[in-house]
Amino acid sequence: MKADFIIAHAFVLTMEGKGVGMVQNGAIAVKGNMILAVGPSADILSAYQADRLIDGTGKLVMPGLIDAHIHTGLSIFRGMAQDMSHWMQKGLWPFIKNTDKKDALTGSLVTIIEGIKAGTTTFCDYDHNMNDIVSHYVKTGVRARVAETINELPDDIGTLPVGDLYPFDTALGNQRLQESIRLFETWHEQGDGRITCLFGPQGADMMGTELLLEVKALAEKYDTRIHMHVAQGDREIDQMVKRYGKRTIPFLDELGYLDSRLMAVHLTEATKDETYLVAKRGASMIYCAGSIGIIDGLVPPIMDFLEAGGQAALGSDQAPGNNCNNMFNEMKFAAILNKVKRSDPKAFPAWLSLRLATIESAIAIGLDHEIGSLKKGKKADILIVNLESPTLCPVFTDPIRNIVPNLVYSARGHEVETVIIDGQFIMEENQLVTVNEKEAIREAQQAAERISRRSGQDIMAAHSDVYQMMKDGYL
Amino acid sequence: MKADFIIAHAFVLTMEGKGVGMVQNGAIAVKGNMILAVGPSADILSAYQADRLIDGTGKLVMPGLIDAHIHTGLSIFRGMAQDMSHWMQKGLWPFIKNTDKKDALTGSLVTIIEGIKAGTTTFCDYDHNMNDIVSHYVKTGVRARVAETINELPDDIGTLPVGDLYPFDTALGNQRLQESIRLFETWHEQGDGRITCLFGPQGADMMGTELLLEVKALAEKYDTRIHMHVAQGDREIDQMVKRYGKRTIPFLDELGYLDSRLMAVHLTEATKDETYLVAKRGASMIYCAGSIGIIDGLVPPIMDFLEAGGQAALGSDQAPGNNCNNMFNEMKFAAILNKVKRSDPKAFPAWLSLRLATIESAIAIGLDHEIGSLKKGKKADILIVNLESPTLCPVFTDPIRNIVPNLVYSARGHEVETVIIDGQFIMEENQLVTVNEKEAIREAQQAAERISRRSGQDIMAAHSDVYQMMKDGYL
Repeated sequence: MKADFIIAHAFVLTMEGKGVGMVQNGAIAVKGNMILAVGPSADILSAYQADRLIDGTGKLVMPGLIDAHIHTGLSIFRGMAQDMSHWMQKGLWPFIKNTDKKDALTGSLVTIIEGIKAGTTTFCDYDHNMNDIVSHYVKTGVRARVAETINELPDDIGTLPVGDLYPFDTALGNQRLQESIRLFETWHEQGDGRITCLFGPQGADMMGTELLLEVKALAEKYDTRIHMHVAQGDREIDQMVKRYGKRTIPFLDELGYLDSRLMAVHLTEATKDETYLVAKRGASMIYCAGSIGIIDGLVPPIMDFLEAGGQAALGSDQAPGNNCNNMFNEMKFAAILNKVKRSDPKAFPAWLSLRLATIESAIAIGLDHEIGSLKKGKKADILIVNLESPTLCPVFTDPIRNIVPNLVYSARGHEVETVIIDGQFIMEENQLVTVNEKEAIREAQQAAERISRRSGQDIMAAHSDVYQMMKDGYL
Repeated sequence: MKADFIIAHAFVLTMEGKGVGMVQNGAIAVKGNMILAVGPSADILSAYQADRLIDGTGKLVMPGLIDAHIHTGLSIFRGMAQDMSHWMQKGLWPFIKNTDKKDALTGSLVTIIEGIKAGTTTFCDYDHNMNDIVSHYVKTGVRARVAETINELPDDIGTLPVGDLYPFDTALGNQRLQESIRLFETWHEQGDGRITCLFGPQGADMMGTELLLEVKALAEKYDTRIHMHVAQGDREIDQMVKRYGKRTIPFLDELGYLDSRLMAVHLTEATKDETYLVAKRGASMIYCAGSIGIIDGLVPPIMDFLEAGGQAALGSDQAPGNNCNNMFNEMKFAAILNKVKRSDPKAFPAWLSLRLATIESAIAIGLDHEIGSLKKGKKADILIVNLESPTLCPVFTDPIRNIVPNLVYSARGHEVETVIIDGQFIMEENQLVTVNEKEAIREAQQAAERISRRSGQDIMAAHSDVYQMMKDGYL
């Protein structure tokens, strides 16, 4: 049978089964956007022919990584908000209010490039202006599961004193809901099916009950999922208790929000009982190890959630306060932060991190029928990783194989040489094929200079810890 | 005045002063192995001429990173010991006993390459066979502060039941001490002065009092420092209490060991009082965030140590149980693990991590007269980092600069383009100049295959958690 290309003689991590599904001297055959077959090289090479045969000797072939939670629209502020208190109010707002859509779009593209270069093939992007951001994914050939952020907060919310109840603007809420519907109607299943849409209420504290229920009804109507921050910080819990006399999770449960349509992001402030409840109701949890570590100095209850039988995934969140969007970073932090949380070196082993960035993540975001593992009939989202890199060397295979621990604990991301998405070569031997990296960086730099000129006064007025560090010579 | 080369129009992080000493549009002039001048480009370019003028536009120029604690002799086992209990006994020993000097040397070279590529210019390497390993540093042109490991443990120590008191073999101890003296006599101040030697007792639990005192006397005689694990694990404390009825730190204090000659590595098990005592006595602390996170699931008391006024540095430790030797990894983990330990996002800001990998580290290891900052008269150990990388983009300069946070939290290490050590270009535009990377990797791979063949029986007999994972399909 004829394939478009075959990669053979590689270590193939299929991620099928309960473990990592390793095939030594394995091969994969691809036709169009589909995986034809995966298995031992001898079997694949005898059953398939291809015009292009890629020698996988010294390489690892694995499924593309999934970033289950990212806000690329904030990327333009990379490095502007960390090591500080009042992250959102003093860190982000002074920049956000001085940034237009065009500026934000340039940052978004740079982060997508950053992700691709570290093996991310599916981005669950969740942001304002998604109707514009989504074009990046269409043009670069990347897979994305996108949501427009929905809330009812006025644009000047950043000026509200800390602790005051947020005012809701239902007209704005409706406008954002309409943007979400437009996103769905325009982009769902576009880009040869690579683009799929979700609904993205920003948080139960940032919109009224009526709008939350409208979103829920729409998610059912369109038969899709809801990507939502849940119990993401003490700020949120405080708002919920002040407004409703209830914490977020019991509130959402009463509203019928906790079900398998929900991708609950963070759960930072969830109690053990609440965490178990979210798992029991069948909602998935998205865990952002790096960003919550930096922004809050906390480790969310991912271990409890998994122990309760919940379905979880890893995400990189936003660049101002992580400050990278690299799933290798997330895999490593997820493992080590949880070892430290439990004071147990056996906690959160490497294979678990890897599953939570591949097959488990695909299940958690509802795309496991297409991606997350290398299996006949799934979409061809494939990485080729150079095992002859100093960080992954040497390779032991017997009686213990060291590839997975080194991938999670030692790889930096740049060991990914080739990125294939939907059967197309998006990066080949470390060179991006579908996007001009230098131009993207130049445009983001120009945007940063515009934002810098406009935001000076607001940043000085906010006088954040970071601004003080700058004044003191620490930046 | 004539320089050999000038790098101009760069962001220059001098690391002088209490902060990061940033010079925008800065330049550095180098002659021989020495920094002639650092300052604004206009000043440097008017005062100096050079045959080679490097355009630093879009680049960051900074001091080379210092890895204050690394065992490169263990690198050949990268990825073989993590996510497990009994790390040393079941993880390392079955491999160590089946590995000869030649095998270990191949792994050492790969790790040195890994380090250089991520900007490490000084390696405090501490291992057995240092008389051989040191040749790598001499040949590659890297700076190293080396110690031969001294203990009195018999070679079959790995077979001792967990909890039994280690037997001491004074003949072996003396032999290792002689190796240390030979190291000093042969290599100290060699490689144009890049190689300096320390004494390296492995731990107070691994040798008798007499040998400890001999080492101390030698360090004084040679006027050098002692690189030593101190309170590195509950295993050590247990041995000390069983043997002497005292915990490590009070024991060492009575012995007169706690002074400014001591580089105390880990302090994992030090109480707050003990940590303060080490700081008060003027010993420095080497903190290995990644390795202790993986091996022990713990965060050593680095914050307490710094608050007590102690002098500290970061180190990457060994590849089997970190699993990388990349100071960017250490800087990021140091910051985030301590934020989480204190539940405080303001704890351990980016600039602190950067100082602990540069100038503070130089002070902690006793080389600040030569390295750690960019200053007239210091040795030219310099990195050129490409700021036009997706991970470091965009660059904001006003009113807040984001370079340092992105360097610590976003950079992976591969943004380092050029590495200059002692005035020599060791890596240029990501290409290593003095060592053949492919050959080094090939040789380490061959060594791993030899070790694999020899160690099978012992690994199966040890039946570690990692071996069980392999059997269960998780590796």
